[in-house]
Amino acid sequence: MAATAADVLSRPAPPRRQWWRMWLVGRPLHTADAPHQAIGKAVGLAVFASDNLSSTAYATQEILLVLALAGPLAFRYVFPISVAIVALLVIVAVSYEQTIHAYDGGGGAYIVARDNLGELPAQIAGGALLTDYVLTVSVSVASGVAQLTSAYPGLFRWRAVISIALVLVIMVINLRGVKESGRIFAVPTYFFIFAMLVTLATAFFRHFAGTLGQVVNPPPLEVHVEQRAVTAFLLMHAFANGTTAVTGVEAISNGITAFREPRSRNAGITLVWMAAILGLMFLGMSYLANPIGAIPSEAETVVSQLARTAFGGRNVFYLATIGATTAILVMAANTAFADFPRLSAIQAADGFLPRQLTYRGSRLVYSRGIIVLALVASLLIWVFDASVSGLIPLYCIGVFMSFTLSQAGMTRRWWKVGRLAAGAEVMEQGSVLRHDPRWALKMLTNGVGALVTAAVTVAFAVTKFREGAWIIVIIVPTLVVTFFAIHRHYRELAANLSLEDFGSPARVRRHRVILPVSGVHRGTVQALRYARGLSDDVTAVYVSLDPAAAAKVQEKWWRWGNGLRLVVLDSPYRLLLEPLVDYIKKIADLREPNESITVVVPQFVPRKWWHQLLHAQTAAMLRFALINHPGIVITSVPYQMTREPGRRPPG
Amino acid sequence: MAATAADVLSRPAPPRRQWWRMWLVGRPLHTADAPHQAIGKAVGLAVFASDNLSSTAYATQEILLVLALAGPLAFRYVFPISVAIVALLVIVAVSYEQTIHAYDGGGGAYIVARDNLGELPAQIAGGALLTDYVLTVSVSVASGVAQLTSAYPGLFRWRAVISIALVLVIMVINLRGVKESGRIFAVPTYFFIFAMLVTLATAFFRHFAGTLGQVVNPPPLEVHVEQRAVTAFLLMHAFANGTTAVTGVEAISNGITAFREPRSRNAGITLVWMAAILGLMFLGMSYLANPIGAIPSEAETVVSQLARTAFGGRNVFYLATIGATTAILVMAANTAFADFPRLSAIQAADGFLPRQLTYRGSRLVYSRGIIVLALVASLLIWVFDASVSGLIPLYCIGVFMSFTLSQAGMTRRWWKVGRLAAGAEVMEQGSVLRHDPRWALKMLTNGVGALVTAAVTVAFAVTKFREGAWIIVIIVPTLVVTFFAIHRHYRELAANLSLEDFGSPARVRRHRVILPVSGVHRGTVQALRYARGLSDDVTAVYVSLDPAAAAKVQEKWWRWGNGLRLVVLDSPYRLLLEPLVDYIKKIADLREPNESITVVVPQFVPRKWWHQLLHAQTAAMLRFALINHPGIVITSVPYQMTREPGRRPPG
Repeated sequence: MAATAADVLSRPAPPRRQWWRMWLVGRPLHTADAPHQAIGKAVGLAVFASDNLSSTAYATQEILLVLALAGPLAFRYVFPISVAIVALLVIVAVSYEQTIHAYDGGGGAYIVARDNLGELPAQIAGGALLTDYVLTVSVSVASGVAQLTSAYPGLFRWRAVISIALVLVIMVINLRGVKESGRIFAVPTYFFIFAMLVTLATAFFRHFAGTLGQVVNPPPLEVHVEQRAVTAFLLMHAFANGTTAVTGVEAISNGITAFREPRSRNAGITLVWMAAILGLMFLGMSYLANPIGAIPSEAETVVSQLARTAFGGRNVFYLATIGATTAILVMAANTAFADFPRLSAIQAADGFLPRQLTYRGSRLVYSRGIIVLALVASLLIWVFDASVSGLIPLYCIGVFMSFTLSQAGMTRRWWKVGRLAAGAEVMEQGSVLRHDPRWALKMLTNGVGALVTAAVTVAFAVTKFREGAWIIVIIVPTLVVTFFAIHRHYRELAANLSLEDFGSPARVRRHRVILPVSGVHRGTVQALRYARGLSDDVTAVYVSLDPAAAAKVQEKWWRWGNGLRLVVLDSPYRLLLEPLVDYIKKIADLREPNESITVVVPQFVPRKWWHQLLHAQTAAMLRFALINHPGIVITSVPYQMTREPGRRPPG
Repeated sequence: MAATAADVLSRPAPPRRQWWRMWLVGRPLHTADAPHQAIGKAVGLAVFASDNLSSTAYATQEILLVLALAGPLAFRYVFPISVAIVALLVIVAVSYEQTIHAYDGGGGAYIVARDNLGELPAQIAGGALLTDYVLTVSVSVASGVAQLTSAYPGLFRWRAVISIALVLVIMVINLRGVKESGRIFAVPTYFFIFAMLVTLATAFFRHFAGTLGQVVNPPPLEVHVEQRAVTAFLLMHAFANGTTAVTGVEAISNGITAFREPRSRNAGITLVWMAAILGLMFLGMSYLANPIGAIPSEAETVVSQLARTAFGGRNVFYLATIGATTAILVMAANTAFADFPRLSAIQAADGFLPRQLTYRGSRLVYSRGIIVLALVASLLIWVFDASVSGLIPLYCIGVFMSFTLSQAGMTRRWWKVGRLAAGAEVMEQGSVLRHDPRWALKMLTNGVGALVTAAVTVAFAVTKFREGAWIIVIIVPTLVVTFFAIHRHYRELAANLSLEDFGSPARVRRHRVILPVSGVHRGTVQALRYARGLSDDVTAVYVSLDPAAAAKVQEKWWRWGNGLRLVVLDSPYRLLLEPLVDYIKKIADLREPNESITVVVPQFVPRKWWHQLLHAQTAAMLRFALINHPGIVITSVPYQMTREPGRRPPG
């Protein structure tokens, strides 16, 4: 009955690939190689923490930028606001640590919302996260290039071009596969942590020793001072801008499956380390911004101002810090390159995105998702001319929306856990619910997290609406509607294709064949021969633009047509396709049950591809025109052209 | 045996068209309507003379521009040079008048060269003419817009946009058909002739009355004076620039078939009138340029300078003249829109251009040629930013090359006529050679024409090579090579398709069917049913990326597969198409004579076009991959998706 291919063909060799493709992404990997790609804690921190850690490079600056609206005196609020943001960080991190242990198969906001809240919240989380991953790439790369242009102002006018080139480099590295990209990214992540800690330590030492001083030649304040008073709205706006520091916390919980066993434990420890390092660096930066008199500016970043103040000029230490910051920001985009394709593959497997996104490429990565992300992020960079301050208002809303849904889902989950008897364990929606005596505390933790992040989301939408948040308010619902449209299609498809209640169809009784001809030549004769092999009921059809040509065709048909019928359709308006399509449709509409209609199209295949331009593509156009009409099967009988024509073998 | 469609279908009604298409180009015309589109002398002059007559608007100016290199004193050579150009015009016009009578079916340079000199000269003439028609559109429209911006300098920065918009308007008018466009163009052509004659008459009257004076506030001289002496090279260069006035003479001989009967006589009279009017206007302009002190400039045309001097300011007469000049220049492009599609259709019918160009659209015009011309001309305008002086160096070389070939061909033809006995008449190459006692005089006329135009062509290439003529020196040979490559393809095709010595092929003995399946569902079962209708030798093939999925497919196949064989191809590198294609090719390579192999592809047809994006296009890709492999027939069995799925009728 069924046979494996082994008896016909041997096991296939690695497929042939173009040399440049081999050089760019490496040799194809066998499916069996997949498990070897898992990573440990140290590489995991490098892969998944760079987004989170790198936000210290712009979070302080973006807070200052809002405070500047009330004049430089308002800058003193930057540290208290940063403390509040770190408190938020702690809440979010604790909440995600709980999630990682509950979902060891990957517990991003999408999965948690899907399993505990339902389809709509899950798709909202999915849409919000995908949007934000794109922005992570754009903002991080743009900010990385801004560090570079702080040190080398001559590059400022090329910032969009440099940024897009970097996005494409990261794309290629990711197409090579997660382990190799993890290794590449480990160096800059640790170099950044080291450089940042040295900078902060130097600055604090000199600060307490009283030798730090202020920024020499600070950049001019570009912001127009709009108000004298520091209002609650302004503080809320500054807080919202600063929460960019919290983005990226979810990266690890989305990527648990990339970790080595025990996955949950490794991922959890990595998360705690990440949050601790981030909190330390961010508070240090924000604390020092005031004493040194840092000014938020597109021309020179706050990191650059701090580093040259701490190290006393644009020396080698300064350049090392700038280099490390640029590197981690560019690499931070990599977090999104790990998560965007993974999330879109999950959504595609659930039937809310095109199925093609679940397909793993030659290097076992979701190559299509990687390419889509790179293209959309490059487009954004191009539109916003690589301006970080221009992109920031769009950023973070998606992340906080997904935080809220994730933690609301976890709260609901703990509620269900609380209903379980001691020691009980139930399987629900693919994850295990196990009784936990501390369920109430955990529910409270996630509940508080949900409320706080919901408040932040609202604060965002309100304070940054006019600056660009409205774009996200349009995009996320549009994405959600699209997801459901795609889902409806796949559901309909499954119902259409289901073999439930499907009686085995009867055999074809009558087989009519229609053979459109453009003339009588070898191609036609070959197709006619094939058509006669299918059925005895063959009708040739010719569309006549010119009676003289039609008469010639009829005469030749008399000789070569094997006595079969030739219908000539007059076309006084010089249309070729339409009369033919109308004729075939009329025949098809008159068909009886168990009657099959096949259109046999002689298709001429030229030797060179560009020769196709020299022919009306009747076969392709006929297929396109008839494909939606039920009950018509279209057969192409190719006739390949040879260089030295002669008597062809009749096979 | 053969039957007309009358017994199946009634005569088709005019085809349905989108409303915007009806509004833009009008209702479709029946083929039988064609003869009614012929035009008389008056409309013929408007359609075919506008290119020629309108060159007076820039010819004088382009002569002055070259003379300016030797300083304004050299301007006095403009009239003698213009007289030489009018002498050239007379030679060319007399020569073409002879051609029109010899070739009453359309006697363009291409046909004359083809019939008398052979394929290569004909294709050179064709390539040169097509290039020049494109330039006619670009130069005329750009110059028309230059008149407009002389009167309204505020529009200067929009000149490229305005020019391209005008090209598209002319395109649409031409897509409506030649008679209607003839009528539309008659008004501006006659208005221009009238306005120009009034301007010249006024200027001459005031000149001889001594009240004309000089141009008030002439535009600054933009040319850098390079040399003191007036050299022979400079005069030759100025002459070459001025010969733009002669372009367009050939238009009538190309378009004889558009004339009402007696075609040759009507066309010949129109040609004489055209040359006379042109000569008069051009000499008048060039004579007056000196006394009024006209300055060649991109900012204000010489026509504008003359008109405001003659009429004493920017009054209503001035504006009417400028308006008429703009109108005729824009309309001049129409000459090329009549000739380019006609010539390309002739070349296509000879097999040197894609056959699609011979196809007449719904309004009986060669719509594809019209669209190609508009697009290429718009591109040129965009590249040269609508600068007439930038385009002029490319212009005219093609025309003079074709003049030379045409007249060389006519010379050869009179030589053959001279060999005939008195009263003899022979048919050669589709035209009639009739004894003519004055053959020697006519041969001499055409011979002189050939020599003179050859000399002008060389003068052109030499004097304007560095300015841009080199582009044409590259393009024309490239086109000729392309024409011959296309011709070789069509010749090979004809040989491949010829039924000469082609034995009627034997009937198919064995019919193998391969059915690629992506799963077992209704679409597969329908396709299987069809495949079984074709042959008892059916093999289903499944590409397995995942053993679990493969096992499921095998199990379902056991139930629905009618006992037919299922081959499972393992694909450890996660490729879908390649293993399938390799398998099918191996089977095909092993086939015996008289064995036919059909690949039956279940093709899923979604309800909405965008749903196609949600599916891997396996059917289309398989067809693409296998089309070049001999002996494989590809059949698509469409499975249309319905909104309300259920038990489908088995038909």
